[in-house]
Order: sequence, then C-alpha cells, then structure tokens
Amino acid sequence: MKIGVIGGGAVGLLISAYLSRKHDITLYTKTEEQAISVRTEGIHVIGPNPWTAYVKSRADVLYKEEILIIAVKQYSLPSLFGNLKQLPPKKIVFVQNGITHIGRMKELAQHELYIGVVEHGALKKSPNTVHHTGIGKIRISPYDGGGAREFIDQLNTSDPLFLIQYEEDWEPVVLKKLAANAVINPLTALFRMPNGHIVSNPYVAKLAKKLFHEVCDVLEINDKDDLWEYIESIAIKTKNNRSSMLSDIEHHKKTEIDSILGDLIQKGKEKGAHTCTMEFLYNAIKGLENREER
Amino acid sequence: MKIGVIGGGAVGLLISAYLSRKHDITLYTKTEEQAISVRTEGIHVIGPNPWTAYVKSRADVLYKEEILIIAVKQYSLPSLFGNLKQLPPKKIVFVQNGITHIGRMKELAQHELYIGVVEHGALKKSPNTVHHTGIGKIRISPYDGGGAREFIDQLNTSDPLFLIQYEEDWEPVVLKKLAANAVINPLTALFRMPNGHIVSNPYVAKLAKKLFHEVCDVLEINDKDDLWEYIESIAIKTKNNRSSMLSDIEHHKKTEIDSILGDLIQKGKEKGAHTCTMEFLYNAIKGLENREER
Repeated sequence: MKIGVIGGGAVGLLISAYLSRKHDITLYTKTEEQAISVRTEGIHVIGPNPWTAYVKSRADVLYKEEILIIAVKQYSLPSLFGNLKQLPPKKIVFVQNGITHIGRMKELAQHELYIGVVEHGALKKSPNTVHHTGIGKIRISPYDGGGAREFIDQLNTSDPLFLIQYEEDWEPVVLKKLAANAVINPLTALFRMPNGHIVSNPYVAKLAKKLFHEVCDVLEINDKDDLWEYIESIAIKTKNNRSSMLSDIEHHKKTEIDSILGDLIQKGKEKGAHTCTMEFLYNAIKGLENREER
Repeated sequence: MKIGVIGGGAVGLLISAYLSRKHDITLYTKTEEQAISVRTEGIHVIGPNPWTAYVKSRADVLYKEEILIIAVKQYSLPSLFGNLKQLPPKKIVFVQNGITHIGRMKELAQHELYIGVVEHGALKKSPNTVHHTGIGKIRISPYDGGGAREFIDQLNTSDPLFLIQYEEDWEPVVLKKLAANAVINPLTALFRMPNGHIVSNPYVAKLAKKLFHEVCDVLEINDKDDLWEYIESIAIKTKNNRSSMLSDIEHHKKTEIDSILGDLIQKGKEKGAHTCTMEFLYNAIKGLENREER
C-alpha cells in the first residue's frame, strides 16, 4: 500500500522504516534537510541488529497517499488538522500519546479514522537515525466504528520486532498507555533518572504510587492492581532506558506534558478529584522546559 | 571569652573564624584530620577579601569552655544531647535550622540556653576553607527567659561583616528563617537551580507560592505578605547562589530535609492542614539523597 507517514520524530522514523519492508512509504518531515538525509542515506535503525531502510521523503505538504499515519507530537496537531480537513477521504491513523486529539476527531468526519497506541521504545539519534530501545506492538482500533479490521491486518508486516495488532476498542488501550506515560514520564524527567528508579528508589516509588492513584481516580479505572502491575512491568523491562520526556528535557526540547498531565489535571478539576501530585509535576516539567542553565 | 564551637561544617567554620577576632575559640570537629588542618593551617575565609583565622581545634569531646556554640546539623544533635546533659552549667547557643531541637531543650535545664538564627550564606569548600557567600547577621535570643542580653552583646565582635544581634523573642525569628528555608531549599535542590529561579522561573515560582501557603498555614503566620517579601528578597539577593540543600544533593550528602520539611509535615498533619506540596518535596529530596547515579 502507498502510505504517507507524517512526522520525522522517533516514532515516525521507526514506523517508516519497519513498514517499508512491505509498503511504499513516503515520510513527510518538517525540514527539507531531514527529507534529504532520509531520501539519500535511508533511515538507520539502531538496535541488536542495526539496519537501514530506504524510503521516499519530502518536506512539502502533499499528502496524496490514500493512507496517512500521523506521527507528529500532540502539540503539533492543531496546525495539521487544518490540512487534514481539506483532504479527500482517506484512511488516517493517529499514533499520539494522550487523548486531546481524540476529542477533535469529529472534525475529520470525511475520513476513515483509526487510533493507534505505540508501545515501542524509540529515541531519535539524528535526523535519519532512530534507536529502537524497546520492542513492543502497535495496537490499532477503528475510531467510532468508521474503520475496518482488514485494513489493520493489511498494514501488518509480520515482522516479529514490529507487530501491528487489531484492537476492538481503543479506549482501554489508550487509557492504559496514558496512565503509564503519566506515571513514568514526568517523574523520570524531573529526577533525571532512568525508568527503573520508579520502582527501585523507595521515595520515588512512593511518589509514583501517589501519582498513580490520582491518575486512576481521574480516569475512573477500577482494576488498579492490574494497571499498576502493567506500569511496574514497563519500568522493570526498560529499567536502564531514559524516557522520552527525560530525553526531551535533557535536549532542551518541548515535552508532551500538556497532552499527558495537562489534560488529566483538566479532567480532574471538572470531576473535583485530587490532582495535587499531578499539578506539582506539571509545573515542575514546565519549569524545567523553561529553565536557563548556568 | 573562651568559647567552644561544636561542629566543623560551613557555619561552624564561619563562626569560629569571625569570633576569633575577639574571643579565644576552640573548634570541635568530628575528625582528627579536620582538627589538624584547622590547627596547623587556620581557617581560610573566602569572600571579597580572603583572610585566614587561627583558632584551636580538637576532635575529642572535651567541651570545657564556659560557652558552647552548637553548630552541628539538626540530624547530629540527638547523640550530642547525651553529652550536653552531663556537663556542668554553661551558656549554650544553638544555631540550627529548624525547630526540632527547641522541643527538647528542657532536657538541658542546668544550662543557660540561647537560640540563634544564622542569616549568612556559607559553603564549606575544604576541611578548613569556608566560602562566605552572603553577609547576614546572627540573631540570638535567650531561651525561656534563662539567659541574659549582656552575654549576647559581649559575644559580638563589632565586625560589620558578622554582626550578632540580640532579639527579645526567638520564635518569630526562628519561624521566619524556617519558612524561608522551607521554600528556597527543597525547590532549588530538586530543580538543581540557583536561588534566583524561585522567583524568575514562572513555573517554579508557582510551586514556591503554593509551598509558601502550606508553610504559612502550618506555622499559623498571619502577615503572609511581609514574609513572602522577605523570602523573595533573599532569593533575589542570593540569586546566583546554590542553596545549602542543593550543595548537599550535588555532593551526595545527607540534607536537612527532615528538620526543615519533615517537622512541618508532622505539625501540618496534627492540624489537618494541606501538606501535599511539602510531602512531594520531602519525598523528592529523600529520593535524591538515596539515588544511585548512572
């Protein structure tokens, strides 16, 4: 299939590389420089077996493929939505963290919409190099009954390192991922510690547990034990990894704190839930984003 | 006067050096190594005009001077109290941060007790070198009516860089210092930022303000505006300084978080006050104290 992947960050590079094994990929980047380096040198995937994928790449807003995978960060979506609204009907897959974009999906009613959750670990090392730090799956569901399972099965390349799995209902998958991001990302970024410290440092673990309970209350999650086990297992499996938010802070880049904790705090306030730990972390990460070093 | 200064940290070195201009000082250190370096090389005071003070120094627990100034950290006091209880009546001045020790003073009823608050900025650079980073005063009050103003006036060396000032009532002075420490120290240590960021970074400032209100509620402070102005003025005057707690975290040393926020949280719980921000910071600093680097 001809697929346009929009966004040349870690996730966009990873998806473009692996899907290119079966599909005809065009990666849309923000800068011409990145488009050139991807087009001429390919995408280098670092991992146990480093390899290079060759894909098309361009920086202009063409989007003429029938299938688009939207891999920009949540905070870059608002400007993209204007473009997407103008396009003829397509299949569009969103793979953002958070839930902000889901509330705006009805604006794109002419398209067949899908919601994906990326469970891989990936860090961008250069404009055309991505480090595949954790093997996971991409779980994709049709949004609002508008999409079909067959399409998701066709996307799948059967590469065991990059499986795409159909999910009936996006909501529990998205919320689970959101809860895990909400607990692991801000704390690791604030303390500048790899993921494992969320469970191994008793004081950070105490804060993680408090944060987790606030998140569960806002998301109205009943089976807390199950979700905590899931988050703990991620922290342990990726214990030496630095989270994407920590990486963003270390590289003085904008983080995804608004779409991860900002939205949850907003929801919490509407419900009258306790959001004190979330608010502390929200301001703390914003404070780090805005820091001047000396 | 013959004065024993107990504790060879930044404050103990600073007090020993300045008081030696008028008094006969013996500095009691924890290690023989430090006692030797102070005795043989003197105390180097770094500042606008670096100078060296020559004082006696010893590591054994003799304490035979009539006047003792207790300059150990709050967390080192419990073991020292046993010794102080055995001594014949003396004048004893405590210059600790926090309020924990004040609750235990009745155990030392045979002595004439004084409570001091050190407003200087000081960082220990080596066993016999202290950097005098901020000129302040030491305010001293008799505890429980047991001491006399004349003694405090006699202590004073009249050095404008190191004035000692009599205060009628220790409580407002101690609480003011505690509030300033509670707001500035944990936040600067957590964010690893110099003091000025408490006011210059809008998100950190938001957290500082929230923390400040919790502290005021616990300490039942009525004139919040006045106290906030005081804290703000310290943060601005010392904007490029790293707080003692930040310095402790950077040097992998135990901090004073227990006597600064630990006590306030305890008091807050007894009163049913909100202590969420304080609790976050307490656990955060404990988490940093217990961190393993990688």
